Amino acid sequence: MSRIVMKFGGTSVANVERIRNVAQHVKREVEAGHEVAVVVSAMAGATNQLVAWTREASPMHDAREYDAIVSSGEQVTAGLLAIALQAIGVPARSFQGWQIPLRTDGAHGSARIASIEGDALISRMTDGQVPVIAGFQGIAPDNRIATLGRGGSDTSAVAVAAAVGADRCDIYTDVDGVYTTDPRIVPQARRLDRIAFEEMLEMASLGAKVLQVRSVEMAMVHKVRVFVRSSFDAPDAPQTGPGGLPPGTLICDEDEIVEQQVVTGIAYTKDEAQITLRRVEDRPGVAAGVFGPLAEASINVDMIVQNISEDGKTTDITFTLPTSDQARAIEILNAKKAEIGFAGLNTQADACKVSVIGIGMRSHAGVAAQAFQALAQRGVNIRAITTSEIKISVLIDSAYAELAVRTLHSLYGLDKA
Amino acid sequence: MSRIVMKFGGTSVANVERIRNVAQHVKREVEAGHEVAVVVSAMAGATNQLVAWTREASPMHDAREYDAIVSSGEQVTAGLLAIALQAIGVPARSFQGWQIPLRTDGAHGSARIASIEGDALISRMTDGQVPVIAGFQGIAPDNRIATLGRGGSDTSAVAVAAAVGADRCDIYTDVDGVYTTDPRIVPQARRLDRIAFEEMLEMASLGAKVLQVRSVEMAMVHKVRVFVRSSFDAPDAPQTGPGGLPPGTLICDEDEIVEQQVVTGIAYTKDEAQITLRRVEDRPGVAAGVFGPLAEASINVDMIVQNISEDGKTTDITFTLPTSDQARAIEILNAKKAEIGFAGLNTQADACKVSVIGIGMRSHAGVAAQAFQALAQRGVNIRAITTSEIKISVLIDSAYAELAVRTLHSLYGLDKA
Repeated sequence: MSRIVMKFGGTSVANVERIRNVAQHVKREVEAGHEVAVVVSAMAGATNQLVAWTREASPMHDAREYDAIVSSGEQVTAGLLAIALQAIGVPARSFQGWQIPLRTDGAHGSARIASIEGDALISRMTDGQVPVIAGFQGIAPDNRIATLGRGGSDTSAVAVAAAVGADRCDIYTDVDGVYTTDPRIVPQARRLDRIAFEEMLEMASLGAKVLQVRSVEMAMVHKVRVFVRSSFDAPDAPQTGPGGLPPGTLICDEDEIVEQQVVTGIAYTKDEAQITLRRVEDRPGVAAGVFGPLAEASINVDMIVQNISEDGKTTDITFTLPTSDQARAIEILNAKKAEIGFAGLNTQADACKVSVIGIGMRSHAGVAAQAFQALAQRGVNIRAITTSEIKISVLIDSAYAELAVRTLHSLYGLDKA
Repeated sequence: MSRIVMKFGGTSVANVERIRNVAQHVKREVEAGHEVAVVVSAMAGATNQLVAWTREASPMHDAREYDAIVSSGEQVTAGLLAIALQAIGVPARSFQGWQIPLRTDGAHGSARIASIEGDALISRMTDGQVPVIAGFQGIAPDNRIATLGRGGSDTSAVAVAAAVGADRCDIYTDVDGVYTTDPRIVPQARRLDRIAFEEMLEMASLGAKVLQVRSVEMAMVHKVRVFVRSSFDAPDAPQTGPGGLPPGTLICDEDEIVEQQVVTGIAYTKDEAQITLRRVEDRPGVAAGVFGPLAEASINVDMIVQNISEDGKTTDITFTLPTSDQARAIEILNAKKAEIGFAGLNTQADACKVSVIGIGMRSHAGVAAQAFQALAQRGVNIRAITTSEIKISVLIDSAYAELAVRTLHSLYGLDKA
């Protein structure tokens, strides 16, 4: 017997018929003898409708009211699934965030989970009941509902799994697992049976949009094994994959991954713009002078590369950011030009960041060199490079994005046979 | 300065544009210097959609889950109105039932209000904020949301008014007040400026569907003055009716009604069926033997008339009930025939109850006799009669309903000039 948290996203619960299908998935696990809790998103489209009404009421709105309104979507799904489960003989009850309670900080609209009281959920589960939890929401210190930001239901599910000491958190989604890269670009992409938390974190933040980054962070911190699987499988399909699981990807501690590959996957992010500040005075605090004003304007800077300038005395700073923020960032930097002290500013849009990810890199030399060589052979010009222990990222022209991803995917032996 | 509770029903908040219009009504009262709390229903149609989903999930559903689902409608409206108020400079925040808290009994789906904590609301109001309260809901002893049954938002509003010691509870609805009778039947019907609680209770339960009966009961018990007015008036229309109020009807203590008429209004209920049990043994407990089994089957019996039988030794019992329950009631009674002890059962559908209502009747003799005479002159046959201190009801053939209502309306001088 295992204790399992099952999470279903908006498309899986888009209407009552699909909710009844979800109930069958839950029943299967209960009948297999597991203790089960379920976390649900709002019915697909419901959140968008609620957000649209909120904006129509006022473009500038109180985040606390936004939360009270938008959280109702998950509340409805949780109640409907509890009813659908009861109807097929599975004892169930819905829980809203404030009823658990799942406590958050006070950042309404994009709150972070502070704590979860697991006792009520555990006692239901050991009694043979299925708690059905409204995802994406909790209760803030002001005793009002707080939402976790879009996609927060994944985070809810992992946090619930940690709180009840679940053996696994199953995320049912519209893809059947995590792939070595985007299968739309590389048809030879393979589904990974397992991937380490750290790798998934890089994959998630780099554009493999299977899971919200925060949910992976939380899974890593609390060592919650997360299993990504398709919600389109028939509830009665045989569960005969590796480890008695159906097709899918287990995100787990690297210790659980027996045959570690050097490279696990290739990720990419498009629509990046690049800004280079030339001949920045090389003194302490200069990076803060550049990035502080951008952070204040809520501009998310991604890659940062600092290099010595041509003149050998000053420094060149290059960084990337979403293309949509490019104009605003340039305006801010030019306004601060004297204060920061730089000679010139170059910028380029249409950049793409391609990343090679793998825990195995830590113990293998030459991985980066291989990548640079392969890209050079294909005529892909590299604008900037950053590396970490388990990742190599290169910034290239967007036009070469697909070519670069395919080249690297083959290079590291990730293509399926 | 007064303290006012304003209540807006589903059609008044059917979309965001109308919610913004409601915000203007609230702003007007705030700018007039009043302390204001608002109670809202779900957007028209929202509750029906939620109920439909619940039924689709399972025709037999857990009332606690039903409540969690359906209560979300009012939650959304309350948040949207709070945002709309803030947008026009009126400080506001939404409250859900559990946040106040508004406590109910455990009868999920049709709960009754047990208590309301007024402190949080009062402190907001004295601070110049407008609490916007989700109607129709509270929190049950099991710490789960309970709804008050359809139309419960009126009851919420009156209960909130009582809890905060409001001077008045304004019910904005799709009619502009309470009329002497149904204007669709009698075009000469007049809007009443004032009506006593007891009279309104009879009018409400007899088919003048302006207010839910329970809300009138609660208003009477807690002496909450209720003002019924149209939600279609422009927010900036002059408020120049009697007592500085716009057109509408004030439901209040009879002491406040200076010129009391003998008869205040004529109400009617259609679709009544009549059942007569002939020659029932005249012994203690016989009425309980008849009506106990019907109550157990949730059949609402209305008029009850007991009379001595032809034989002078037994009794005839006549009562009315909704036509939809007629067949079921007959089945139940026939099954208990030996136990109850009656000789025969007559029944008739297509009955209509017409009632003459007025507190003034208490001090005026002959009101009933006038009615019987007027109806006889028009050829209206009376099947049964019941009377109370402030009401005379007659049961007649449905075909004569409109004629009877018009006749009585004229008879007591209620037609407008």
